[in-house]
Amino acid sequence: MLIIDCHGHYTTAPAALQAYRDAQLARIKNPSLPEPAAPVISDGEIRDSIDQNQLKLQRLRGADVTIFSPRASAMAHHIGGEDVSVAWTRVCNDLIKRVVDLYPENFVGVCQLPQSPGKPLARSVEELERCVRELGFVGLNLNPDPSGGHWTSPPLTDRYWYPIYEKMVELDVPAMIHVSSSCNANFHATGAHYLNADTTAFMQFIEGDLFRDFPNLRFVIPHGGGAVPYHWGRYRGLADMLKRPPLARHVMQNVYFDTCVYHQPGIDLLAKVIDVENILFGSEMVGAVRGIDPETGHYFDDTKRYIDALAMPADKKHQIFELNARRVFPRLDRILKAQNR
Amino acid sequence: MLIIDCHGHYTTAPAALQAYRDAQLARIKNPSLPEPAAPVISDGEIRDSIDQNQLKLQRLRGADVTIFSPRASAMAHHIGGEDVSVAWTRVCNDLIKRVVDLYPENFVGVCQLPQSPGKPLARSVEELERCVRELGFVGLNLNPDPSGGHWTSPPLTDRYWYPIYEKMVELDVPAMIHVSSSCNANFHATGAHYLNADTTAFMQFIEGDLFRDFPNLRFVIPHGGGAVPYHWGRYRGLADMLKRPPLARHVMQNVYFDTCVYHQPGIDLLAKVIDVENILFGSEMVGAVRGIDPETGHYFDDTKRYIDALAMPADKKHQIFELNARRVFPRLDRILKAQNR
Repeated sequence: MLIIDCHGHYTTAPAALQAYRDAQLARIKNPSLPEPAAPVISDGEIRDSIDQNQLKLQRLRGADVTIFSPRASAMAHHIGGEDVSVAWTRVCNDLIKRVVDLYPENFVGVCQLPQSPGKPLARSVEELERCVRELGFVGLNLNPDPSGGHWTSPPLTDRYWYPIYEKMVELDVPAMIHVSSSCNANFHATGAHYLNADTTAFMQFIEGDLFRDFPNLRFVIPHGGGAVPYHWGRYRGLADMLKRPPLARHVMQNVYFDTCVYHQPGIDLLAKVIDVENILFGSEMVGAVRGIDPETGHYFDDTKRYIDALAMPADKKHQIFELNARRVFPRLDRILKAQNR
Repeated sequence: MLIIDCHGHYTTAPAALQAYRDAQLARIKNPSLPEPAAPVISDGEIRDSIDQNQLKLQRLRGADVTIFSPRASAMAHHIGGEDVSVAWTRVCNDLIKRVVDLYPENFVGVCQLPQSPGKPLARSVEELERCVRELGFVGLNLNPDPSGGHWTSPPLTDRYWYPIYEKMVELDVPAMIHVSSSCNANFHATGAHYLNADTTAFMQFIEGDLFRDFPNLRFVIPHGGGAVPYHWGRYRGLADMLKRPPLARHVMQNVYFDTCVYHQPGIDLLAKVIDVENILFGSEMVGAVRGIDPETGHYFDDTKRYIDALAMPADKKHQIFELNARRVFPRLDRILKAQNR
């Protein structure tokens, strides 16, 4: 059995990446500055940043492959205009491609998109196509709120989003729904904005009929689905009150939750109320919560331990750890098969 | 043992209340219209609206007292200016007072406030004082987002909110943190906005030091605390990463969760991770979810059944059903004692 972590970000990228970003931000304030050149980062710097972090933790915790994307909080689609977002996104995605090339058995790529609040998605469609066809990526992160906590875009069921969905279906790649940092003081990024976005997206899918238009569209809602599994009765009841079909048919043919829930009782609940077919192993390491839980003596985000501890038959754990990810990410499955895995 | 439901709204008010509101809204569009007179509602109409709904369900489900406030989704602080909000709020609170007077053993009052986006809280302080001192109410509902889903107010830890906190401490009343309807298409009110607000408020309390300034301030976060108990490990870990004190000391001396979680696994989780001292029985009936769960044959929001089914000693259930509410709402305790309960 392979252990596939569906949710990892390159949160430990070499300093040159941030220096590039800083130069971008400086140029927003002072447009007379030159457009910054792409950061120069050596293979050795990438190896240093990965070996002591994600790769070390993969080995320590027993994961085999991580579906790897740029740092989510740094996407910051609300900063600068679309051109800034396009340049930043290409640099970030290209760096993921280099990680994948250096560690082809440990990482597969997922891209961020050059979204920009209020802008159409044409350039995101282009970047998705480039990342999948040219860089070999297997999915994308889609930000439902590129305004960074002001929620000025239409809901995910709106036709505004359809160009990206059409491309996703054409390329047969799923999206993780993942917001970025928050510029609204009400929302702490990883403590409120992330979970709120997960919850919000799920409810939008209940209200809408998106999967009638796109029966093959697939979304991973991260962080264990936000508040949804804890309130599963509420959502079943709301679907009923709103005269929607049962969730199993209306939403859960197309929506998956990861296991980024950082304590055993939360994972127990997830596994209890959500069909095992809809759960993908994920840890989001190295991510939002990096410390050791004093109650267990283990890292909060060592989520594999929680799955291991579930009272669940081995074949179902196999689904969570490997088979569901191969099904939801068919291009990942092809890469693994080409590696005889 | 008394069963005290800490979370009920007057969602079934007589039609004259909505007619009054409609006249208010018409006057916003056409200011030449006269200011509407307070709605004329007979005791019989109030009895009809309560007997067949909240009172019937109290009896069927075995609750004794409901802490009762105006319909949360109808507060709609984002509609009209402050004067509209003040007039609407007084009408709604006065109607709660009439319910309490008709059924003094079944209902105690909690008020809504005449908040208005961007406006200072002076008139909310006045209305709180009126409701507690003149109408005998025991608490308030505080809307952290009077903009209705645009989140334009400062976080709850900001000094903007201090006037209401000072009055709460003076009157010794707690606030339930409760948003109203959403005018942001991203957020379904009861399926996203409510839970997001709960989650957001909790994280604001972690980030801030509000309870250092107000050690006796008390908040009930409804809907089982939003996403918080499901992500309890995440919050413990975030508090640690942000170098905040442990949650038990930093937040949970002042914050309580209700039991408006509409399935057994959710309540099991809540009771497992949250100290029993911090849990208050609530159902929010007649509220967001009114149907029958086909998996159980019982109403989703008949939350007493879930507490009854918990594997927990009777004295701890007594805390959840009665003692915690009497401690968090001392004015409720005094009312009950005056009734020899």
